[in-house]
Amino acid sequence: MIKLYGMPLSPFARKVLLVLDYKELEYENIPTFPADESPEFRAISPLGKVPVLDHDGFILPDTSVISRYLDRIAPEKSLYPEDPKLEATACWLEEYADSKLIENCAGLFRQRLINPKFFNEPTDEEVVQSILTEGMPQCLDYLESVTPESGYLVGDSLSIADIAVTTCFIQARYGGFDVDSAVAPKLRNYLDRAFAAPLVVKRLESEKAVVNAIAPDLL
Amino acid sequence: MIKLYGMPLSPFARKVLLVLDYKELEYENIPTFPADESPEFRAISPLGKVPVLDHDGFILPDTSVISRYLDRIAPEKSLYPEDPKLEATACWLEEYADSKLIENCAGLFRQRLINPKFFNEPTDEEVVQSILTEGMPQCLDYLESVTPESGYLVGDSLSIADIAVTTCFIQARYGGFDVDSAVAPKLRNYLDRAFAAPLVVKRLESEKAVVNAIAPDLL
Repeated sequence: MIKLYGMPLSPFARKVLLVLDYKELEYENIPTFPADESPEFRAISPLGKVPVLDHDGFILPDTSVISRYLDRIAPEKSLYPEDPKLEATACWLEEYADSKLIENCAGLFRQRLINPKFFNEPTDEEVVQSILTEGMPQCLDYLESVTPESGYLVGDSLSIADIAVTTCFIQARYGGFDVDSAVAPKLRNYLDRAFAAPLVVKRLESEKAVVNAIAPDLL
Repeated sequence: MIKLYGMPLSPFARKVLLVLDYKELEYENIPTFPADESPEFRAISPLGKVPVLDHDGFILPDTSVISRYLDRIAPEKSLYPEDPKLEATACWLEEYADSKLIENCAGLFRQRLINPKFFNEPTDEEVVQSILTEGMPQCLDYLESVTPESGYLVGDSLSIADIAVTTCFIQARYGGFDVDSAVAPKLRNYLDRAFAAPLVVKRLESEKAVVNAIAPDLL
């Protein structure tokens, strides 16, 4: 039995949920906040982060480690290219998405959705402006430079890079941000393809109830 | 031709240098500071971090991605256990070392060695105390709970977990910290074994000149 501790709207939980869905693995998602201070949660998450995987009692934190583990136990349709250079490129883009890109995407999500709609706190417009004028343009520049005209980000099938980058831009959309096709045309086309994929459509569908509860007018 | 951009005393560069040595790969280490603002370096390191690998023009940042790539192109004596659970455990410990543990070990290195001996700045004793009384004890508790009585951290041969954890404690030693065997006996024994391994002895030997240049009385 696979259990995943994490909030459905967390970009990191979503990353693993996309892997689980893609691998057609059965699982239970146990909604858990990263700030959960219960001894039970701290024991399974030494860094206090979500998500955490529990596979029949085998506890595993960290989305990159969890994703590869799931790929190892369900190796059909591998998310890691066979060629070492392609595999490394996919894993590097995953790392870029999980660190630099998510910082900006989650910042917009936090400031424009969670702060006003969930915490009843004002949006910090300075933070938003800094993301929109500095952080995000850097990310778009870089990603545009590595995005192909068609197909997947790396190689000729879905890889962990696609899943990691897509989950970030889902977060950005909730934060009212979409990639301008005049700024990053290849990336914008790529994201249009990614958002139309049944895997992503299904995931967004399952997030609707939570999003609607927070911001009924968003979707 | 393999080139590694990074400072020899950076714990992250050392991690990759240990992998290169273990794999008996030929390489050139090009000393580079993470603060390097040259367009050449920023172009190959989108996150502005070291180390960065250049393998015949194939550029790869991030130590975890680089290490796995090197293991893929030189698969003998793999640093990634074959069993999925053991592999995941090794990669999780690598992640723990690369984030939480290094934060504390590098903090001591910075405060006690680099600040006074290299930047001619005072040691921030508050930071040191916070590491010694909070950050480090948490790490030692956790690591002690996962360290075996004998052998390697995970499985029955050297893995990426051993390399990642060992490079952190080399940093801590330069920062005047060693694990108290009364506090974490299994970890202390493990580190005694790790530091006695020819791979580590050789690496420490090659770092001596730089360390001596910074702090002639340290070693």
